[in-house]
Amino acid sequence: MADQFYTKKEAMLYSQRIAQLSKALWKAVEKDWQSWIKPYDLNINEHHILWISYHLKGATISDIAKFGVMHVSTAFNFSKKLEERGLLSFSKRETDKRNTYVDVTKKGQVLLEEMYENYHETPHAVLEGSLPIKEVYGKFPDFMDVTAVIRNIYGDDFMDIFERSLKNLESTIVAKD
Amino acid sequence: MADQFYTKKEAMLYSQRIAQLSKALWKAVEKDWQSWIKPYDLNINEHHILWISYHLKGATISDIAKFGVMHVSTAFNFSKKLEERGLLSFSKRETDKRNTYVDVTKKGQVLLEEMYENYHETPHAVLEGSLPIKEVYGKFPDFMDVTAVIRNIYGDDFMDIFERSLKNLESTIVAKD
Repeated sequence: MADQFYTKKEAMLYSQRIAQLSKALWKAVEKDWQSWIKPYDLNINEHHILWISYHLKGATISDIAKFGVMHVSTAFNFSKKLEERGLLSFSKRETDKRNTYVDVTKKGQVLLEEMYENYHETPHAVLEGSLPIKEVYGKFPDFMDVTAVIRNIYGDDFMDIFERSLKNLESTIVAKD
Repeated sequence: MADQFYTKKEAMLYSQRIAQLSKALWKAVEKDWQSWIKPYDLNINEHHILWISYHLKGATISDIAKFGVMHVSTAFNFSKKLEERGLLSFSKRETDKRNTYVDVTKKGQVLLEEMYENYHETPHAVLEGSLPIKEVYGKFPDFMDVTAVIRNIYGDDFMDIFERSLKNLESTIVAKD
């Protein structure tokens, strides 16, 4: 990277802007997410683990940690809790004895699908806050900047899995209209 | 809002996309923020409270909670700790006996300024991940979508204070070049 094409002050101001915007956005997302999953007695990490396992169809704990952006110990501990509730199952593979694979059980699948069916039963401030943009541009914002920055930080495979899981969601899930 | 201009499924897919992007971005921001402030024995909430008090020049606890996107009790408890460390001072105003006003002390100001001077001593993955965009477009990304959504969620005064604090930072802070 050419070292003279931005000043350190400019970089710091940019970085502070993103930090504040990102915190405000995440806090709104977190609140929406929590109120959606509350009736199902799940926390965000647990729901995120279920979501990843559902879409990856046989993820390892380290896949879950990576795509869920959480510590491996967090991924393991919450996966264990979901297994105890019968929502996930653990297995080893003949070809790979070192890793533990995690799959969503039938019960877990039914729960996730029910949650998507009831998605619009709870408030979604982020969605509401995006509607004026949809009205002006005819589509929801695509967050190109954020997506590009995340691709640079987390890598292409992170984004590939991310896009794959959304495509998968699109083709399998029914939301009550 | 016209109720037929989007399907519920489309809205859910959009909302799930933002949730995941926002989590990944925030986790990267949080990591950068933590490594920057670690040498100063502050957590993110404490640093955020100092930042807001510094820029607002006489904020109430509820201003801090609002602009820092934290609970009032969190804002109060961490402000109290900062006061005990001599970084903030509390006061009442003749014209407004009900609210407690918070100001950054000289010691707090010196600390904040020192932190900005050393901003580039720690890694900033979000900044690094934005440089390729800066290279392509000649400027850092402006996150217009995110800014618009946040304005819709938190209101104009939130964004006004946000922009004001960044302008203030620009005019007062020196970053070593």
